[in-house]
Amino acid sequence: MTTPRQPYYAVIFTSKQSKNTTGYANMAKKMEILAKQQDGFLGMESVRSNIGITVSYWASLNAIKQWKQHSEHVLAQQRGRAVWYDWYRVKICKVEREYEF
Amino acid sequence: MTTPRQPYYAVIFTSKQSKNTTGYANMAKKMEILAKQQDGFLGMESVRSNIGITVSYWASLNAIKQWKQHSEHVLAQQRGRAVWYDWYRVKICKVEREYEF
Repeated sequence: MTTPRQPYYAVIFTSKQSKNTTGYANMAKKMEILAKQQDGFLGMESVRSNIGITVSYWASLNAIKQWKQHSEHVLAQQRGRAVWYDWYRVKICKVEREYEF
Repeated sequence: MTTPRQPYYAVIFTSKQSKNTTGYANMAKKMEILAKQQDGFLGMESVRSNIGITVSYWASLNAIKQWKQHSEHVLAQQRGRAVWYDWYRVKICKVEREYEF
């Protein structure tokens, strides 16, 4: 993600998939498209191999809260807990400084 | 990573490897071992496929600064910029809240 003006927030989502991945890829793609349409969405980076790490970036804590409560996202979260994930962890963080090469 | 007492800090390191990965795996392993020995180190999660995302967790901003300035780590960073990475980005964040499933 290119650097937005600070301050902004990062949501670090780490997860371990269960053996049942039926429907997961479609839902993940749908949620990515939907997230990008939300007010305050700044960017997203995602990688999965043994575990998955997705970091999304947001303009405010309120934007994160709105996205967490978005009706379609709530359904995806429920499905995730019921079917797709053995575990997941969410950390909401304020980006304090950054640099790049 | 299991949840430490808050507040604490996360360093989000995203990177794109270059085509030359000679010596990279050994150095990455060495740096992981060394990071774990540092004061204030709390944990680390790392995944790589198309890009890499490594998130390390620290007790304080000072612990992060000390690790950034560690002599062996400085050499690894120089080597990384010279050889192993097309680009990388580092974001230093304060973990404000978290939850898990």
